[in-house]
Amino acid sequence: MTEQTEQKEYNLLSTINLPADLRQLPLEQLPEVCRELRDFIIHELADNPGHFASSLGVVELTVALHYVFDTPNDRIVWDVGHQAYGHKILTGRRECFHTNRKLNGLKPFPSPEESEYDTCTCGHASNSISIALGMAVAAQQQENDRHVVAVIGDGSMTGGLAFEGLNNASSTPNDLLIILNDNDMSIDHSVGGIGQYLHQLTTSSAYNKLRDRTARRLLQWGILTDIGKGRLLRFNNAIKSLITNQHNMFEGLNIRYFGPEDGHDVIRLVETLKRIKDMKGPKMLHIHTIKGKGFEPAERDATIWHAPGKFDPDTGERIKTEHNETQPPRFQDVFGETLLELARQNPRIVGVTPAMPTGCSLNIVMKEMPDRCFDVGIAEGHAVTFSAGMAREGMQPFCNIYSSFTQRAYDNIIHDVAIGRLPVVFCLDRAGLVGEDGPTHHGAFDLAFLRPIPNLTIASPMNEHELRQMMYTAQLPDKGAFVIRYPRGRGVLTDWHCPLEELPVGKGQKLKDGNGDTVVLSLGPLGNTAAQAIAEVEQETGKQVAHYNMRYLNPIDEDILREVGQRYKRIVTVEDGTIKGGLGSAVLEFMAENGFHPEVVRLGLPDKFVEHGTPAELYHIVGIDKEGIKSHIS
Amino acid sequence: MTEQTEQKEYNLLSTINLPADLRQLPLEQLPEVCRELRDFIIHELADNPGHFASSLGVVELTVALHYVFDTPNDRIVWDVGHQAYGHKILTGRRECFHTNRKLNGLKPFPSPEESEYDTCTCGHASNSISIALGMAVAAQQQENDRHVVAVIGDGSMTGGLAFEGLNNASSTPNDLLIILNDNDMSIDHSVGGIGQYLHQLTTSSAYNKLRDRTARRLLQWGILTDIGKGRLLRFNNAIKSLITNQHNMFEGLNIRYFGPEDGHDVIRLVETLKRIKDMKGPKMLHIHTIKGKGFEPAERDATIWHAPGKFDPDTGERIKTEHNETQPPRFQDVFGETLLELARQNPRIVGVTPAMPTGCSLNIVMKEMPDRCFDVGIAEGHAVTFSAGMAREGMQPFCNIYSSFTQRAYDNIIHDVAIGRLPVVFCLDRAGLVGEDGPTHHGAFDLAFLRPIPNLTIASPMNEHELRQMMYTAQLPDKGAFVIRYPRGRGVLTDWHCPLEELPVGKGQKLKDGNGDTVVLSLGPLGNTAAQAIAEVEQETGKQVAHYNMRYLNPIDEDILREVGQRYKRIVTVEDGTIKGGLGSAVLEFMAENGFHPEVVRLGLPDKFVEHGTPAELYHIVGIDKEGIKSHIS
Repeated sequence: MTEQTEQKEYNLLSTINLPADLRQLPLEQLPEVCRELRDFIIHELADNPGHFASSLGVVELTVALHYVFDTPNDRIVWDVGHQAYGHKILTGRRECFHTNRKLNGLKPFPSPEESEYDTCTCGHASNSISIALGMAVAAQQQENDRHVVAVIGDGSMTGGLAFEGLNNASSTPNDLLIILNDNDMSIDHSVGGIGQYLHQLTTSSAYNKLRDRTARRLLQWGILTDIGKGRLLRFNNAIKSLITNQHNMFEGLNIRYFGPEDGHDVIRLVETLKRIKDMKGPKMLHIHTIKGKGFEPAERDATIWHAPGKFDPDTGERIKTEHNETQPPRFQDVFGETLLELARQNPRIVGVTPAMPTGCSLNIVMKEMPDRCFDVGIAEGHAVTFSAGMAREGMQPFCNIYSSFTQRAYDNIIHDVAIGRLPVVFCLDRAGLVGEDGPTHHGAFDLAFLRPIPNLTIASPMNEHELRQMMYTAQLPDKGAFVIRYPRGRGVLTDWHCPLEELPVGKGQKLKDGNGDTVVLSLGPLGNTAAQAIAEVEQETGKQVAHYNMRYLNPIDEDILREVGQRYKRIVTVEDGTIKGGLGSAVLEFMAENGFHPEVVRLGLPDKFVEHGTPAELYHIVGIDKEGIKSHIS
Repeated sequence: MTEQTEQKEYNLLSTINLPADLRQLPLEQLPEVCRELRDFIIHELADNPGHFASSLGVVELTVALHYVFDTPNDRIVWDVGHQAYGHKILTGRRECFHTNRKLNGLKPFPSPEESEYDTCTCGHASNSISIALGMAVAAQQQENDRHVVAVIGDGSMTGGLAFEGLNNASSTPNDLLIILNDNDMSIDHSVGGIGQYLHQLTTSSAYNKLRDRTARRLLQWGILTDIGKGRLLRFNNAIKSLITNQHNMFEGLNIRYFGPEDGHDVIRLVETLKRIKDMKGPKMLHIHTIKGKGFEPAERDATIWHAPGKFDPDTGERIKTEHNETQPPRFQDVFGETLLELARQNPRIVGVTPAMPTGCSLNIVMKEMPDRCFDVGIAEGHAVTFSAGMAREGMQPFCNIYSSFTQRAYDNIIHDVAIGRLPVVFCLDRAGLVGEDGPTHHGAFDLAFLRPIPNLTIASPMNEHELRQMMYTAQLPDKGAFVIRYPRGRGVLTDWHCPLEELPVGKGQKLKDGNGDTVVLSLGPLGNTAAQAIAEVEQETGKQVAHYNMRYLNPIDEDILREVGQRYKRIVTVEDGTIKGGLGSAVLEFMAENGFHPEVVRLGLPDKFVEHGTPAELYHIVGIDKEGIKSHIS
C-alpha cells in the first residue's frame, strides 16, 4: 500500500493508528470507518492471501469494541484469531499489514508477543471463554476493574472447552462479557444442536427488540436512570422466560443474555455495549453477522471464501491455482477419493470429521454417501470417542483430524480407542510444518505423542500411492487402531491412481543401497526431499548413499533397523516431526536395546515452536530441506 | 463369600446369574432384589475396598435397566465405571466379585474384554454419550433395532466431551436414551452452572409429575393407546415450556426430556423406562439419586465414602490407616500443605482443580483461602486454559490434575500455556502406576507426551522435600510453564517439613559415586527403589554403583550426562513412565548428539497397557521394583 492510496481512499482509517484515535471520532463516523476498514481488508487480502470471510464478518463488532472499551487496558479475547484482521489493523499494525502471515511479518493469529492489544494465543477454537474467565477472575483478585470481553463464534461454541468455560463462568464470581458471534458457520456450516438452538433464539427476538426499545425510550425520556436501566433489563430478563417460547440455555446457566442483535449495525452495537458493559456478573450478547459481509462473492459462499487465496478485489474472481494434469494432487483429495473407493467396497466404512469436511476433502464422500459421513462440529474429542462407539459395534470409522487439532483428542485416542484395540483409522491431515498458519497449526508433535501409546499403528506415506495403500491396509480385518499422518498440500505423483494393495504393517522399504558408511532412514513425505539430497550428493561425490523409507513408525521395521545397525556406521534419520521422541528416538532405542552403536544423526523439528512462513522457507530454517539434509550426508 | 452365606442372605440375588434370570422375576420382587444387591455390595466392599457410594446410588437404576432392556443385545454405557458394581454382580460376576480390583481379578471398571455386558472402557468421565451415540448410529447403519442407553452423572455432565456428545446427538439421527443420574456430586460436590441448572429443573418437577400421572391414568383407563401415549407425552413436552418457568436446555437441544424422577423407586423406574424406551429420537431421563443410598454413614458424607477403604458393615466404622508420626505423609498432602505455605507468602498464587479438591488435597488451601481456589468441575481442558488466562494477568496458578487425566488437557498445555511461556505450575498427582484403578488411571504417558513440548520445565521429586522445593522453585519469577509430577500414596520421609529453597532448574544431584562401569540415572520416586537396589548390590558384591537423581527431565542436566557419558560404560535409566520417549530416550538422544557411546539400559513402563493390582505387584511385574533394578546392576 502506498501512502498516496491510503490518503486517497482511507481518510478516516489512515488517522487511526491506535484505538485511542478511533475513540476520538464521533459516533456517526463509525459506519464510514467500517466501510474503509472493510475495503482495506478486501484490497490487502486480494494480494496477500489469508483468512478472509471471518474478518469481514466482524468489522462492525471490531470497531464497536475498540470504540467502547478502553483497550489495551480492557481485554478483548478473540476466539480463533483469523477473525482478528480488523483488530490488527486498528491496533497499530495497519502499515505493516501487508506482511501478514509472511516470514518475519505479522503473525497469522493475535499474539501477545506482537502487540499489547493481543491478549492470548488463539489459533485453536473454543478457548476464549476459559481464557477470558481466567482474566476476569484475575482482575477481581487484583481488585482491578478492567473489562474482559470474549468474542466467540457459534462454530466454536460446539467445542467442549467452550462449554466447560461457560459452565464455570456461571458459578465463579466474574463480570465477563461473552459476545456470541453467530453466523451459522464454522468453516463449513456449523452443526449440532447449538446451531439449531441459536436459530430458535432468533425466532423469539421480537420480544428482545421490544424490551430494548422500551428501555432506550424510557432512558431518553429521563424516566429511567442508569442504575434503574440495569435493574429493568435484569428484571425483564427474568420474566422473559415466563412469557416467551424461548428456551434460554444461557440464562439457565445464570448468564444474562442480550440479543440477538444485528452485528452489522455499528451504531447500535456501540449503544448496546455501552449499556451492558458495566453490569455485574457474567453476561452474553448474541449478535448475528454474515461471514464475508460486504463482499458479495464471499457472502454467497463463505466456505470457499474462508481462505480464498488471491483474488481480484473488483470482480471477485479468484486467481486460481487449480489442479491440472501436470501437477500432483493434494494429499487431502487423495484421501477423499480413496475413501470413497474403499467405502463403495466396504459397507462398514464411515467417515467422521470435526467441522472440516471441505478442509480434509471428506466432502467428496459426503456427496455420494451423506448417510455414512458425520460432521460432528468443532469437537475433536467427541469425533474420536464417537468413532470408538461405532467401531465397537463393528463399523470401520475413518476419523480425519488435522494433526495439531489431534492434540485435543489425545485422551480419547488412549482411553476410548487404544485400550480397547478398536479399529478406528485416524487420518491426520496437515502433519509436519503447515506454513503460514504458524506454531499453533504445525503438526509437529503427533509422532512423539502417539508413539508411546500401545496398540496403535502409526504410518506416514511418502507419496500418494502409499497414502492410498495405507488407507486400504488400515481397513483390512484385525488391523486395530491405525494412524496415517500426511502433510498439507500437494504430493509428488501426477499419476496417483494406483491399485489398492496391502502395505504390510511394520514393514519399510529399501529405496536404494549404498556403498559408504551412511544410510538415510526417512518417514513420510520428507523421504522425497531426502532422495533428492541423496541424488545430488551421489552426483557430486560419486558415492552411493543407502536410503530406506520406513513407512511405519509403530511397529517399526526391526529387520531394517537390524540390517542398517549391522551394516552402516552412520544413520541419518529424517522426519517432519519434533526431534524429541519421534523416529530418531525410536531408532536410538532400538540400537541401544540390540547392542548396535552406530552414530545416529536425527533430523527433525527443533525443540522450539516454529514460526510462520511458507513451508519451503520454514523447512529451510529448521534445516530439513534438501540442502540441510545434504549437509549431513555428504 | 461362602455358598452358605449366599443361600442364607441372598434368596433372590443368588438365583440371578445373568440378567435373563432377573427378567424372569415379577415386578414386585424387584425392591427385594435391590435390597439384597445393596446389602451384597456393602458386605463385599467392607472387606475388599473399592468405589462405594456411587454403586449404592444406582442400585435401583441398575436393576431397572437390566430388567427392562434386553442386555447384552441392548447396550448400557456406564459413564465412569465405578458406579457399575451392581451391574457386574448382575451380569455373571457375583461369585468372583471378591476378586474385584485385585491382581488377575475382576477389572476395576467395566471392560469388554471381561464381559459381553460391558460395552466400553469407562475409567475417565464424560465419554458415555459420545460412545453410546456411536453405538446408536452403528445400529442404524446396520438396521439393527437394539436399544442404546448412556448413564451419566451430573458431575460428568460438566465435562466438555459430554456436551460435545449431547450437541451431536441432537443433530444426528439416533434413538439414544441418556439417563442423567443426578446426585449433586462428582467426587466432591459438582460445581458450575450445570449443577444449579439441574436443581432448577427439579423445582419445576410438579408439572412433570402431573403430566406423567395423567398419562398413566389415561392409559390405565384405556383412553390412551400406546401410540397415543407417545404422542401425548411429546405434545406435553412441547407445551411445557410455555406454561412452566423451566429453562430446559436439553429440549432446547432437541433432546426430549423426562423427569426428574426418584431414582430409588425401582418399580416406577421400570415403568418409566418401559414407557419411553421405544420412542424415536434422542431422549433424556433425569433421575435423582443419593450417593451412598442405603448406608447411612455414606449418605451423610459421600465424599469420604466415595472410596472409603475397609469398614465395618454393621457399625459403619472405617478401618482407618491414618497417618501417624512414624509413617511418611501422602504426597498429595505435602502438596496441599506446601501450597498453603507458599500462598500465604505469595499473593499471586491461586489453586485450580478439576473436581478433585479432596483427592489432590487442595482442600487444605481451600479451607483457609476459599477465594483463591477454584474447583472448575470435571473439565481438565478448561482447568488449564482458565489457569492460562489468570497467568496472563500476572497471577501464579497451581493447577493440580491427575497425570492420566492430564491427557485430556494436552492441547491446552501446548496451545494456551507453552506457546505463550505462561507461568502455570502443573502439579500432576497420581503419576506412575496407581495400582488398583488399572490401565485407565496409570500415569504412564506424561513424561513422554510432555517432553517434546518446548518451553516446558518438567520435574519429578524423589521425596517430599524435593516436592516442596520444586513447588517453591516453580513459583519464583520467570520460571515459565512448569510441571511437577509425583505419585499416588505416601512418600519416604517422616520428617517432611523442610525449609523452602530453590532447586535449580535443569540440575540433578549426584547421590553417590561408583567404582565400576555402571551408573544409575533415576527420575522421581523410583530413585528410592534404585538406591535400595544399589545398596543391596554393594553389600552383596562389594562394588560401588554410581547413582544420580536427575530431578528434571526438561531441561535435562547436560553436565551430569556429559560426566557419566565420559566416565561410565553402562548407564541404567530408571523412571516410572513409559519406556518410549521418557528419560531413557532423552539420555540416548544426548549421548547420540554428543558422540558418547555407552551401553544404555532403559527401565520403565513397557509398551503395553499395565493392568490393575497393588502398586508393589505391578512394579514387580514390569520389572522396576528393587529386584528388577538389581538384576540390571549386579
